[in-house]
Amino acid sequence: MTMKTLHDALFHPASIAIVGASDNPAKTTARPLAFLREAGWAGSVYPVNPTRSTVRGEKAYPSVTALPEVPDHVYVLAASDLVAGIVRECAETGVPVVTVMADGFVESDPQGGERIAALRAAIAGTRTRILGPSSLGVAEVRSGLALTANAAFAERDLPVGGVFVASQSGSVIGALLSRSREMGIGLAALVSTGGELDLSLGEICEGSLDDPQVTSYALFLENLNASEDLRRFARGAAERGKPIVAYKLGRTAAGAELSVSHTGAMAGDDAVASAFFADLGIARVANFEALLEAQLLVASAPLEDRPHRAPRVAVVSTTGGGGAMMVDCLGAAGAAPTAPSEETVARLEAQGVRVGHGTLIDLTLAGTRYEVMKAALDVLCTAPEFDVVLAVPGSSARFSPEHAVKPIAESAGYAKPVAAFVMPDAPDALKLLRKSGIAAFRTPEAAADAIVSAFSRRRPRDLHVTASRWEGATRVMDEAESAALLAGAGLTFAPFAELAVGSLPEHLPVEGPVAVKVLSADLPHKSDVGGVRLGVQDGAGLHAAAAAIVASVAEKAPGVPVERVLVQQMVTGVGEVLIGYRDDPAVGPIVLLAAGGVLAELYQDRTLRLAPVQLDVAREMVQEITALRALSGYRSLPEGDLEGLAEAVVAVSRLGIVSDGAVQEAEANPVMVMTKGNGVVAVDALVRVAQERQRS
Amino acid sequence: MTMKTLHDALFHPASIAIVGASDNPAKTTARPLAFLREAGWAGSVYPVNPTRSTVRGEKAYPSVTALPEVPDHVYVLAASDLVAGIVRECAETGVPVVTVMADGFVESDPQGGERIAALRAAIAGTRTRILGPSSLGVAEVRSGLALTANAAFAERDLPVGGVFVASQSGSVIGALLSRSREMGIGLAALVSTGGELDLSLGEICEGSLDDPQVTSYALFLENLNASEDLRRFARGAAERGKPIVAYKLGRTAAGAELSVSHTGAMAGDDAVASAFFADLGIARVANFEALLEAQLLVASAPLEDRPHRAPRVAVVSTTGGGGAMMVDCLGAAGAAPTAPSEETVARLEAQGVRVGHGTLIDLTLAGTRYEVMKAALDVLCTAPEFDVVLAVPGSSARFSPEHAVKPIAESAGYAKPVAAFVMPDAPDALKLLRKSGIAAFRTPEAAADAIVSAFSRRRPRDLHVTASRWEGATRVMDEAESAALLAGAGLTFAPFAELAVGSLPEHLPVEGPVAVKVLSADLPHKSDVGGVRLGVQDGAGLHAAAAAIVASVAEKAPGVPVERVLVQQMVTGVGEVLIGYRDDPAVGPIVLLAAGGVLAELYQDRTLRLAPVQLDVAREMVQEITALRALSGYRSLPEGDLEGLAEAVVAVSRLGIVSDGAVQEAEANPVMVMTKGNGVVAVDALVRVAQERQRS
Repeated sequence: MTMKTLHDALFHPASIAIVGASDNPAKTTARPLAFLREAGWAGSVYPVNPTRSTVRGEKAYPSVTALPEVPDHVYVLAASDLVAGIVRECAETGVPVVTVMADGFVESDPQGGERIAALRAAIAGTRTRILGPSSLGVAEVRSGLALTANAAFAERDLPVGGVFVASQSGSVIGALLSRSREMGIGLAALVSTGGELDLSLGEICEGSLDDPQVTSYALFLENLNASEDLRRFARGAAERGKPIVAYKLGRTAAGAELSVSHTGAMAGDDAVASAFFADLGIARVANFEALLEAQLLVASAPLEDRPHRAPRVAVVSTTGGGGAMMVDCLGAAGAAPTAPSEETVARLEAQGVRVGHGTLIDLTLAGTRYEVMKAALDVLCTAPEFDVVLAVPGSSARFSPEHAVKPIAESAGYAKPVAAFVMPDAPDALKLLRKSGIAAFRTPEAAADAIVSAFSRRRPRDLHVTASRWEGATRVMDEAESAALLAGAGLTFAPFAELAVGSLPEHLPVEGPVAVKVLSADLPHKSDVGGVRLGVQDGAGLHAAAAAIVASVAEKAPGVPVERVLVQQMVTGVGEVLIGYRDDPAVGPIVLLAAGGVLAELYQDRTLRLAPVQLDVAREMVQEITALRALSGYRSLPEGDLEGLAEAVVAVSRLGIVSDGAVQEAEANPVMVMTKGNGVVAVDALVRVAQERQRS
Repeated sequence: MTMKTLHDALFHPASIAIVGASDNPAKTTARPLAFLREAGWAGSVYPVNPTRSTVRGEKAYPSVTALPEVPDHVYVLAASDLVAGIVRECAETGVPVVTVMADGFVESDPQGGERIAALRAAIAGTRTRILGPSSLGVAEVRSGLALTANAAFAERDLPVGGVFVASQSGSVIGALLSRSREMGIGLAALVSTGGELDLSLGEICEGSLDDPQVTSYALFLENLNASEDLRRFARGAAERGKPIVAYKLGRTAAGAELSVSHTGAMAGDDAVASAFFADLGIARVANFEALLEAQLLVASAPLEDRPHRAPRVAVVSTTGGGGAMMVDCLGAAGAAPTAPSEETVARLEAQGVRVGHGTLIDLTLAGTRYEVMKAALDVLCTAPEFDVVLAVPGSSARFSPEHAVKPIAESAGYAKPVAAFVMPDAPDALKLLRKSGIAAFRTPEAAADAIVSAFSRRRPRDLHVTASRWEGATRVMDEAESAALLAGAGLTFAPFAELAVGSLPEHLPVEGPVAVKVLSADLPHKSDVGGVRLGVQDGAGLHAAAAAIVASVAEKAPGVPVERVLVQQMVTGVGEVLIGYRDDPAVGPIVLLAAGGVLAELYQDRTLRLAPVQLDVAREMVQEITALRALSGYRSLPEGDLEGLAEAVVAVSRLGIVSDGAVQEAEANPVMVMTKGNGVVAVDALVRVAQERQRS
């Protein structure tokens, strides 16, 4: 017997066993069998129940080993403590995939930890894979495979289509099913990945990439566990032109606050997730409904390599109020609603379509007629000043779709993406548009969200991240060692010298101003212990500064010896920033650029990307920092070397590569931005490295 | 004949004339008569059409004067150029209200200007009022009065209820009608106010305040014209406990940029509108659907006088994913999702309801049963730590509302507001909840938006704004005069002296550092012309500084004489801010507080309120400035006198009162915030005052 692929075992099994199927129709555990029978699924289904000879009038088997064949997929509905035993039996029998519904597998709970260990042991060394625990199951819509305990699947005539829905939350698949049905957006399959003890959401989606029925993806995520799988899946999807839309809960992880540098705390988990999605070509939406409504738009929007810019949107309406509202929402969401060019206005007029001035292309005066909207769309869809055309039909959409909705539906063939926000309640118009391939939105907020997220994706880059893995303890380098490492990576440092405090020469050739700083890996936050003296002018001052530092550290960090100080040329720039790097436990290497100083910290003025980055992306990051606008020709202020800053960001972003993955975290802070042409100069740094290379 | 009230003439007329009613059913101008007849409206309807003897088989009259009675309300559907003549006829006949559909009455267009003048002249000196132009009409749902050309009113069985819909955009009333129908949210009346040449949206709404059928308001606004009317209406609504929800397009007015001070440009029109709404107890929503969905929530949320704080929300769900998503959305929107207290958890457990840890009160493990949700709501609705309870039913809402939806519907009687976000597509559950008085939301975004906006309102304050009106030219005061005016209002200024440049004494008793500044009302932006010298230490330095200023101004502002300089003690604070005041043309006096310096300008770190404000509101404003967090015990930074700053904001906010309305605009910038207990000190100021009092 050849083993099925993971994807086929999950979604196209020939045979299924349901362990713990109940005979009592009121019980959740009765649902999967009932759903499969009601849907008329064509494969073999074996109820397994050691306490009954029949379930729902069907023959029940006492165990998986007692079945007449090895099923492709087993759904275990039994209680938490019975799960490991059943899964072991499945693994011994050679079942390719076992889905586990029970919860109670929480690592932090002692009993849960034991159950997890037992479950892992049950499949160790076998080819059996586990979906779950806490999985509400899977469904394949076309074949009627509803191997799920989610009540929403009691309905028949589910909407068949190309969207593959994967959710870490079980109940969400039911909500998306009913909403997709109402929207007229067809689904290919749904999966609830639950606790992801073995199979991750990314791996399951990756397995579906070559399923011709799957045309796009809707992901509902609670975390970025197994991000490597997600990354591989996203790259595969981009290669095949299958778009991914994601909605992710934005919880902050307490872990980030434990970080030694500011970079950890500033690069909050949600910002990391956004960078991860954008860099992998995944459109992250903020409106729940947009997760489905945006599918067609993202499919038609190009996945480009160019630096990000706000999408230029043509808004054409047969309702002045609706069109104006849409323009407003687009602007608020960060898109660029764009007025037609003079040439485009002339072309519209040549077609007999009179439009007013301003951004909105309002056809109200021209009349809500098929010919008018058709002619307008023909012109707008071939006008070079727009990235996307958004049509807003008014009340006619509800009663007379032949007027404004029909020509919109007919514009799906243009190379330029076309979308619609339908102003009145008009479910039939929405369905008609979607059926024609036009992304249609019930709310202006979801439409704006979808457009912005569709165009904020970039084609996944080949990151060449080191394959080395490190384990065990890490150590914090002192400032001199940190600076040397960063300088080696290409970041300019203010010149410094190390001096032994115990043997300072009497006459020191100091030309001030210099900074004197305690040098010790045990004191990463030097200022807090009075370990920094600025503006020292001469040798005598240096002696005094060193003595003051020794005294202060003795008081504030008793027991930490002060053996060395670092003397550094003071540097005055026109602005200051922080450049950080972290090998993030969730998503791997990231690079962070933040404005410097207290205010920037309060304003959370920062941006990040997956590392490493090329110069074009680094330039984009520089442009995203609000404070740096003051250095780019703002009022009469001196211009800073923003190109030099972008180069510095590139250098820091490559720390993982140059250290073969040893750098866990690094931060140059502050980095002084000098006047144009004079680069940037780091004056302090902190690096944390792994100490042991993992056996590979 | 006693004249009807405006409200009755608009919405409860006994008789109507439709001027320009068409016999051709395909024409827009045929709609109002058709709608009225199809709805079986009981009053008298007179078609007026000078070119036909019948319209739709009904007798048509050649003119309004030819009618057998004076109608209460005339809807003029005629072309723009005919409107003034028809309205004049109506006014002469004594018609109380005339609604005008035609557009082409734009002030900026010469022909439009003439039409406006003619229309104003037509009603001058009469008691006739005009609704429009560009009005799509009015509707009163219960009686079937659909005096409108909006296609959406072709439907029968419109949803009757208490929401009064007023919109400056005509097509929006059709969209809100169809959406309200789908939502099961009943409407009392709808009005499209169009160009507001005479009747404003505020005045029309005010007229409806004592209509017992009207229980709440939904406003769709494009601008804040006639804000005095809106203000009166909002105060009346607050007195009667009738809530107002508003959606406003956020366009920026170019006018603000013409302002002489920074205050104008910083206080963008949209921020002014938000302050206006909040101060008048109006809930401004950002999600279009929330305009209707939020009605019941706003009705149940208290309109308090207390300073603003984020609403504390209990989130209780029968879907883990849906509940988590709702908590996430609430946090992102600025609400405070709140975990139950220990006591509340104990009370839940006493009722047999087990909940997990964390913010979300998830009933999934306890089971989706009526008793569980009922018991949980009974506890949560009487728990003091919550301002509002938000329930999130899962898939059961679609098929089995008796489980989780019914107990939510039954909780409408609690004093604490209860709302629901329904996770699956479940239109019947939404309607059932709304019918029971529970605000129910289709999307988590609208639910979060509604909760935040309902709780960001404050009870309208009695502003005691001066009734004086000023007209004609304004003048800019020089710094000394500006400082004197602000000091008179109670703002502390850094000590200064005026000196005549032509006769500076040879020996000046200067104890530096001082600032030397050119003193001239013709040079409001002193720095731009080199008119400021800082850090001057002694008399000799002052002579040199004055000479340098004279030379620089001669070069950069030739022809502006430099006769005086101002010498001012330099002040170093721990932070700096801008305090501004403006008699805004749209909403009247406002006070602005902004962080000082270039970065604050880039970050748009500012807040504003209708002026004057009391100390509690000023404290709230201080807390809203991000940069000021650095002065409230942040890290080891010195604390600033934020209480003194709040007092200064109060002082500036009262400029309208102390000047009897003469101050048009004032700005103290920078204002140095001193260390705690040492107040704030303004070091520069600019005031613009009106020169002539208007004949009152």
